[in-house]
Amino acid sequence: METVSENKCFGGVQGVYTHASKATGCDMTFGLFLPEEARDGPVPVLWYLSGLTCTHENAMVKAGAQGWAAEQGIALVFPDTSPRGEGVADDDAYDLGQGAGFYVNATQAPWAPHFNMWDYVAEELPALLGGKFPLDMERQAITGHSMGGHGALTLAMGLPGRFRSASAFSPICHPTSSDWGRKQMSAYLGEDEGLWRRHDATLMMREAGFDGPLLIDIGTDDQFYDLLKPEALADAMALRRQTSQMRLQPGYDHSYFFVSSFMEDHVAFHAEALYG
Amino acid sequence: METVSENKCFGGVQGVYTHASKATGCDMTFGLFLPEEARDGPVPVLWYLSGLTCTHENAMVKAGAQGWAAEQGIALVFPDTSPRGEGVADDDAYDLGQGAGFYVNATQAPWAPHFNMWDYVAEELPALLGGKFPLDMERQAITGHSMGGHGALTLAMGLPGRFRSASAFSPICHPTSSDWGRKQMSAYLGEDEGLWRRHDATLMMREAGFDGPLLIDIGTDDQFYDLLKPEALADAMALRRQTSQMRLQPGYDHSYFFVSSFMEDHVAFHAEALYG
Repeated sequence: METVSENKCFGGVQGVYTHASKATGCDMTFGLFLPEEARDGPVPVLWYLSGLTCTHENAMVKAGAQGWAAEQGIALVFPDTSPRGEGVADDDAYDLGQGAGFYVNATQAPWAPHFNMWDYVAEELPALLGGKFPLDMERQAITGHSMGGHGALTLAMGLPGRFRSASAFSPICHPTSSDWGRKQMSAYLGEDEGLWRRHDATLMMREAGFDGPLLIDIGTDDQFYDLLKPEALADAMALRRQTSQMRLQPGYDHSYFFVSSFMEDHVAFHAEALYG
Repeated sequence: METVSENKCFGGVQGVYTHASKATGCDMTFGLFLPEEARDGPVPVLWYLSGLTCTHENAMVKAGAQGWAAEQGIALVFPDTSPRGEGVADDDAYDLGQGAGFYVNATQAPWAPHFNMWDYVAEELPALLGGKFPLDMERQAITGHSMGGHGALTLAMGLPGRFRSASAFSPICHPTSSDWGRKQMSAYLGEDEGLWRRHDATLMMREAGFDGPLLIDIGTDDQFYDLLKPEALADAMALRRQTSQMRLQPGYDHSYFFVSSFMEDHVAFHAEALYG
């Protein structure tokens, strides 16, 4: 693992690190914010998964999360959204290939074997983080935006016991019934839609739900609202009696201006679960 | 004036607008954050001047200022740092030409007649803003980062009575004695160093000071510390008995991670002056 940069930030350190990944077969870069308290021992961890076209960097500089995390003594992890590099397949579309890993393990050419973002975020990166940094991996929470909100919800439900709480900003809620989902699942996982079910928050909510609290914020002026399908997930949560809040925020859109407006609430929400 | 974008943000609106500028002879773009209170009438204004290589956008997305401005009911203006476009002179160096206007009116070719950033920020943009938006131009304050900190301090001192308070993050404090300054003043203003004196915060502090409170933050690990010359300004402020705080923040560097870490303090500082 190599250090790309470390900046003092809100009393802690915002680092960027790169490492050779087995899961994706390429170098991967991630951001990690450690609050001041990490000097004295392991701190709880909040994962932030990013959306289409993002790298590890976007949320790190635009989501305004570090100040709130510092206040709560929580670390933040910002993974990249796909494998990258010359040997890695890509597509001209912004919503497929590099920058659009969708947090699945691809089985189809040309995406296999590099596009294993599920294994990367669920297994390889946590093992690396737990070994190298003062993080309490018994206290993890997860959030994300858009495609990363989809990732946060599906990882939270797909790994029972791993995360104490989960939240999402403008998540893709029901990808198997959306143009933001069907195209990518078909490309990455092939045509057997049975395999897609483990990567659809609405279907997973219908099946088993999440063993912790959920917080979801979506702006009513989100320009991609129809692609997100929040109504399907809201329905599934109500049927499940899932401990959850879904908030439709008047006037907000899909941007980081929306994410940053409600980041304080999300960090406080996770802090309650992580310290509770 | 044309609207480029408007995003709801912390209950208010983050807008970006473009207009044909007489001062610079080209189209200019600026960001304006209006808090929710602006719906009911004019609100006070805090200017944020940016540093080398920046456009109107960097601080708008990275400084984390909107949340604090919303809390205080203050508008934020984010001007660009130079004229731009095909007919506008430029230089291969990052610290001269486009993105490096230094908040002066150039008298020398090839920079005249476009590089009139002093007139743009001191006269033309305030007149436009006061006419088009619910802003109380009797209550203005100014801040900035690096080259923009230089701009904030020199505009504050050069326009007595205009700004109630001024602050700066990592400002260029004494450009007439620094490589960040001598090169640009020579290029824009020519070799008569007498003309440079109106654009050097340390020299202006020695001559007349500022008729309001000053807050200056600089990180002790700033990689450009030697170019900023804070010691010269600190000396001048002490001699002048200027109402001021200069804080040398241990471990912080020149980045927006530093700026965002102390933005709350700066906005609160200006709010006290604007509402006092």
